[in-house]
Amino acid sequence: MCRWLAYSGTPMLLDDVLYRPEHSLIDQSLHSRLGVETTNGDGFGIGWYTQDIDTPAIVRDTGPAWNNRNLREIADHVRSPLFFAHIRASTGTAVQQTNCHPFRHGRWMWMHNGAITDFHRLRRDLCLAIDPALFSSVEGSTDSEVMFFLALTFGLDQDPPGAVARMAGLVERLGHENGVEFPLQMTLAVTDGDRLWAFRYASQGPPRSLFYSSRVDTLRELHPDMAFLQRVSDVTRLVVSEPLGDLPGAWNEVPPSSYGIVHAGADELRPFAPQPV
Amino acid sequence: MCRWLAYSGTPMLLDDVLYRPEHSLIDQSLHSRLGVETTNGDGFGIGWYTQDIDTPAIVRDTGPAWNNRNLREIADHVRSPLFFAHIRASTGTAVQQTNCHPFRHGRWMWMHNGAITDFHRLRRDLCLAIDPALFSSVEGSTDSEVMFFLALTFGLDQDPPGAVARMAGLVERLGHENGVEFPLQMTLAVTDGDRLWAFRYASQGPPRSLFYSSRVDTLRELHPDMAFLQRVSDVTRLVVSEPLGDLPGAWNEVPPSSYGIVHAGADELRPFAPQPV
Amino acid sequence: MCRWLAYSGTPMLLDDVLYRPEHSLIDQSLHSRLGVETTNGDGFGIGWYTQDIDTPAIVRDTGPAWNNRNLREIADHVRSPLFFAHIRASTGTAVQQTNCHPFRHGRWMWMHNGAITDFHRLRRDLCLAIDPALFSSVEGSTDSEVMFFLALTFGLDQDPPGAVARMAGLVERLGHENGVEFPLQMTLAVTDGDRLWAFRYASQGPPRSLFYSSRVDTLRELHPDMAFLQRVSDVTRLVVSEPLGDLPGAWNEVPPSSYGIVHAGADELRPFAPQPV
Amino acid sequence: MCRWLAYSGTPMLLDDVLYRPEHSLIDQSLHSRLGVETTNGDGFGIGWYTQDIDTPAIVRDTGPAWNNRNLREIADHVRSPLFFAHIRASTGTAVQQTNCHPFRHGRWMWMHNGAITDFHRLRRDLCLAIDPALFSSVEGSTDSEVMFFLALTFGLDQDPPGAVARMAGLVERLGHENGVEFPLQMTLAVTDGDRLWAFRYASQGPPRSLFYSSRVDTLRELHPDMAFLQRVSDVTRLVVSEPLGDLPGAWNEVPPSSYGIVHAGADELRPFAPQPV
Repeated sequence: MCRWLAYSGTPMLLDDVLYRPEHSLIDQSLHSRLGVETTNGDGFGIGWYTQDIDTPAIVRDTGPAWNNRNLREIADHVRSPLFFAHIRASTGTAVQQTNCHPFRHGRWMWMHNGAITDFHRLRRDLCLAIDPALFSSVEGSTDSEVMFFLALTFGLDQDPPGAVARMAGLVERLGHENGVEFPLQMTLAVTDGDRLWAFRYASQGPPRSLFYSSRVDTLRELHPDMAFLQRVSDVTRLVVSEPLGDLPGAWNEVPPSSYGIVHAGADELRPFAPQPV
Repeated sequence: MCRWLAYSGTPMLLDDVLYRPEHSLIDQSLHSRLGVETTNGDGFGIGWYTQDIDTPAIVRDTGPAWNNRNLREIADHVRSPLFFAHIRASTGTAVQQTNCHPFRHGRWMWMHNGAITDFHRLRRDLCLAIDPALFSSVEGSTDSEVMFFLALTFGLDQDPPGAVARMAGLVERLGHENGVEFPLQMTLAVTDGDRLWAFRYASQGPPRSLFYSSRVDTLRELHPDMAFLQRVSDVTRLVVSEPLGDLPGAWNEVPPSSYGIVHAGADELRPFAPQPV
Repeated sequence: MCRWLAYSGTPMLLDDVLYRPEHSLIDQSLHSRLGVETTNGDGFGIGWYTQDIDTPAIVRDTGPAWNNRNLREIADHVRSPLFFAHIRASTGTAVQQTNCHPFRHGRWMWMHNGAITDFHRLRRDLCLAIDPALFSSVEGSTDSEVMFFLALTFGLDQDPPGAVARMAGLVERLGHENGVEFPLQMTLAVTDGDRLWAFRYASQGPPRSLFYSSRVDTLRELHPDMAFLQRVSDVTRLVVSEPLGDLPGAWNEVPPSSYGIVHAGADELRPFAPQPV
Repeated sequence: MCRWLAYSGTPMLLDDVLYRPEHSLIDQSLHSRLGVETTNGDGFGIGWYTQDIDTPAIVRDTGPAWNNRNLREIADHVRSPLFFAHIRASTGTAVQQTNCHPFRHGRWMWMHNGAITDFHRLRRDLCLAIDPALFSSVEGSTDSEVMFFLALTFGLDQDPPGAVARMAGLVERLGHENGVEFPLQMTLAVTDGDRLWAFRYASQGPPRSLFYSSRVDTLRELHPDMAFLQRVSDVTRLVVSEPLGDLPGAWNEVPPSSYGIVHAGADELRPFAPQPV
């Protein structure tokens, strides 16, 4: 499985979020606490938005994040108000750049932790459901990228939660038709460069872990001595596979079968359910 | 485009064939003479058979062949009676291991130079024609790998020339249906570890270049002073995208629209035409 | 050998300089016109300065620049007022990140085209001349990095032209002592993030090619229709191994045995000679 | 730190030793039990001898061993009577091919687990002690490679245990002169393609773990039902950083401050002490 992190708020040096926290994502690449696998060394990716450019920059590589010097350099020199980072633990698919997250289409960016159960049995049917005009843009061999293109097919551009629900509904229906009882495990992050959606769902049992950071104004009251909190705006949020540290009051679990929207001044949590297609 | 080489005959150190000739495949990776591109630096691969093991070993990497130290090491230390080598010049698809040739399925090995014209427009239809049981084994995003899985679908295991003809026929039919007038350009090498088939075909105009080496007994008469020729058996053959040197009498062009079978004591050339599917 | 490019002036998207020109550096990685080698596919590097951060970001990788997606992404999304780019053609030393240019020390950045003749014979003596406090920071095995650390040893921080002259003087003296008649071939770019120095020198014969762009106000008069020239300030300059195109009046050769300083409002060309150490 | 394995005996498919055991070296790359680090994902290497070729083949790469397909391919298709395998956990030096073990010089092969304490403070003095004729062959930046070249300098070719003792003596003397109290931690494997030497030593405290396999004839008596043991000759031996499984009677600790020689019919264990230089 994998670990990921999504940041939205005050423009920040990537380093402050990716490397500095005590249990940072880079630390999780070697020593994940809550993941199915403790090591996430099968590639990584970051994607960030820059002022005046619609599409995010995506930098991905196949080695472990913990020893990658280019990632260190970028984190030390790039600031962004909205960025994703992902570390991968492959469950068998090839370790290659096109299988690393985040994935991009136009201004959209997508990353995933989890799996489609028995993906090899469903892959063909799922690929056939992708909009033929998009089919040839699939470059890798992961379930995660297919899920992205299905969501694009189902209207991600107009209605992100609806498109994700229809994608999940299709995965479950095709799974059941192919004898896979519990086809879907996912935490997902999606953004168009403005808003950020994060989903947590599993066909059965608890989904992969997912947390969001508390409101910055609340944290400032709890921890008036933390200089860091003075530097970020109230609307700054992190959504993460596992907490970046043990700061009391800082992290809240995203409930199973729900999704959150992060948007300046209008964050909310809502229920999520796959929608039959 | 690409360059490739197929060897069958007396077990030989890979180095003798890959690096030693004056215009070796490694030299062609930097300075191809007959290729559409002069540089073939977007990955490479070798595949070789070993005594008592049915499947070939496949080693592929994404950098240029000319500076790859592991390739040098393997070539200096591995002997094989039947091996393929391929250097890649990408026409846009990702530079990743799963897009490097040769491709393998069971004991079969496949490599290609050429292209399906406007592959992005035909990719979905071609993928749908792959045997559903094989679909999920496609790992990369090249036309060449799809051609391999189509040939497997069409009976490569029983009738290699027929399967390749049906694959080519399908590519041409789907091309025409999608408004691609001249869909196929190919030189292909296929082997099951015993026999070797090499194809040269284009929907229009001269196909990519392809040559085979003369009979060793003939070469010995022409060049009685070449020690090298004393070391290899009469049934040794090379099939190559371009000659490895300028030895008079050594190289013969494979005619367009034809294929050759290399097999101990039974080499032959035959006409090739796509077969409607 | 190699090719490189140094930019100083109006903050610019790297893409505008690295990819857009008709004979861009990326194009030169496949088809250099003036280089000793036409292909520069043995690694690449970029280094750029960002507002409010003293050290430059350095991103380097071992494959060819022409097919590197991360380079494309960074070029499409990063703006900088001062950046270096380098494409490498190894003359035998390992193709590894630590042998790719630019090199960095503190806020200093360095890149080189050329060679120390018979470097393997001089390497030990040259390494011994490096300030012992710096010795352990040498990470790679190139002559170029050793030249950088020698210049740092000889006072790059205080007097860049003097430090480079002493470095060159040492290389020539140790060369002569070891029986190497013409030890040095170099075009060099050095910067501290503020000023940029570019050197052209060879112990014998014409040094590697080096060009600088004309004053932007002059170019505007010559080419009043080029929109691009309206977007950049008068003090913008490029120094390049070979011209990025054929724009009349745009490119001027740096004379042999000379160096240039690029600095807002104060560009100048001066003679260069190695200084005995 | 690192983990390693050395095999000498009946020619064996690498796979049988590298991947098949329950706690194989590949498994240790993700989950080492006895190592200082549990993850060894910063590169790997294998080196093997082939009939009629003096030098070993060395294949090394910078990613983790556990997901490397080329390693899998080679292991599945190469047989050797004498081979090394090494997985690396960097303590800060660059992750690059030239820093991966094993190292080779002529027919000699060397790999190391451990460290020279504060190597950056000793690196220059140690490098100066390398035979000037060998200095330029040092390609990487590790302590391990410098130790190898020091051993070569001190007569590895004539007297391996003596050369290693002098290398260790020099490291300790230069360490003490530079204020490093306990300079050396090492388990080492060295071979000339015929005999194999394995060393275990630390300046203070227990050295890194090291084990050797029991005599095959003994194991056959203990485990008459294990088919595997019927296939290997009596003189087959493994020396490993940690046992490959829990077979009772199979593994014996190499005592601290000792070394073993593995040679057909003449294995022995002897005391080891650094020798002042």
